[in-house]
Amino acid sequence: MPENTLAALEKRLQRLEDERDIARLMAAYGPLVDGGAADEVAALWEPDGVYDVDEVYLAGREQIAAMVRSGAHQSWIKDGCAHVVGPPHVTVDGDDAVAVCHSLMVVQVDSKYVVRRATANHWQLRRGENGWHVTTRTNRILDGREESPELLVNGVRGASA
Amino acid sequence: MPENTLAALEKRLQRLEDERDIARLMAAYGPLVDGGAADEVAALWEPDGVYDVDEVYLAGREQIAAMVRSGAHQSWIKDGCAHVVGPPHVTVDGDDAVAVCHSLMVVQVDSKYVVRRATANHWQLRRGENGWHVTTRTNRILDGREESPELLVNGVRGASA
Amino acid sequence: MPENTLAALEKRLQRLEDERDIARLMAAYGPLVDGGAADEVAALWEPDGVYDVDEVYLAGREQIAAMVRSGAHQSWIKDGCAHVVGPPHVTVDGDDAVAVCHSLMVVQVDSKYVVRRATANHWQLRRGENGWHVTTRTNRILDGREESPELLVNGVRGASA
Repeated sequence: MPENTLAALEKRLQRLEDERDIARLMAAYGPLVDGGAADEVAALWEPDGVYDVDEVYLAGREQIAAMVRSGAHQSWIKDGCAHVVGPPHVTVDGDDAVAVCHSLMVVQVDSKYVVRRATANHWQLRRGENGWHVTTRTNRILDGREESPELLVNGVRGASA
Repeated sequence: MPENTLAALEKRLQRLEDERDIARLMAAYGPLVDGGAADEVAALWEPDGVYDVDEVYLAGREQIAAMVRSGAHQSWIKDGCAHVVGPPHVTVDGDDAVAVCHSLMVVQVDSKYVVRRATANHWQLRRGENGWHVTTRTNRILDGREESPELLVNGVRGASA
Repeated sequence: MPENTLAALEKRLQRLEDERDIARLMAAYGPLVDGGAADEVAALWEPDGVYDVDEVYLAGREQIAAMVRSGAHQSWIKDGCAHVVGPPHVTVDGDDAVAVCHSLMVVQVDSKYVVRRATANHWQLRRGENGWHVTTRTNRILDGREESPELLVNGVRGASA
């Protein structure tokens, strides 16, 4: 039975707030990236945070913002695009956290929507002076490659990518 | 460092409860609308709340319930239909709130499921005597039209539609 | 106006923690099942918990783990597969809870992703000595059969499947 002191309650409350902050950060990614808000997307990461996607490795906010501003990404937006980031499973450990979720990239092609890819998302986050930010986000497409299922399971276990 | 008084903790707790109430309301929409529960769908809105969708502007609970009861909507249910409303990003400001998410409308056509549309969802909500309700929900399809990305970004910023 | 005592705050905090535990359990299912972690999938249920899916009725952890280890399921993983479990609507009542959500099974076929099925998910859960576990999860495909919409509405109402 947990102790019923102010300090004990505050600690439990802080945990819920941490999880809320992380879930909220993750829920911001899709709307911001489909909205083309390059700097706000990048600001979800630490200044030197990493976004490690199958075909590209983005190191630092400038590269992440440049991806959003790229012709390729702007084309997705112009054709119609939804980066749907699924409900997160979050594990907080002090000032560090690991989260995991699926994402679906849904795009419009020839006036029809198709799922372009389904992806395993593993997030490592850290609490700094200005709250939680992503240190490394690792995305691997769920196309049968072995690392993607491993990434999902490691994420639920709160382990590194 | 936040003050550790009962009143300070209660305020933080209340914020989490507000966010929970809003997320729970949003998570009710899809199941209720795919379940054909017309009055319960409508009751998520304030009596004079607005559901502003691309092709239709529904003002007040009666029009919202009528949409659910319409032959068009009942056909979706009979053919097989999932309105999947994505994880919410919620911003509470006193008795007002803004939330944003994606939604996918997945329907069965010729024994196959297809994504009929991917949509930007912007929610404005207000706390009344009976808890939180939607004042205006604005949905715009993500098909390249400029207002949809703007809606997503405004939602994350906690700004109006 | 709620009472501002330590005990009253603790009760509200406990409710939020219960809902968090349940949402976190539900968010673990998809990553674990797509990751092939058979025992960890099964451990989300009580030892004699039930997973009642359209075409199969799994009673107890052994049968649930066997489903994950089956050739059919392993094939999905090898071909590329995402069980995307939507945001939950949770209703806690003491040591029992009901939750509802949609799920999408997205699979890769001929180098393209398709939605194989969209499903109504109704979860009954119970709090035991080791936290919350699923007692019965009932999944029904949203293909026009009448029980699926009913399941969704019952879930939002916090009623049994």
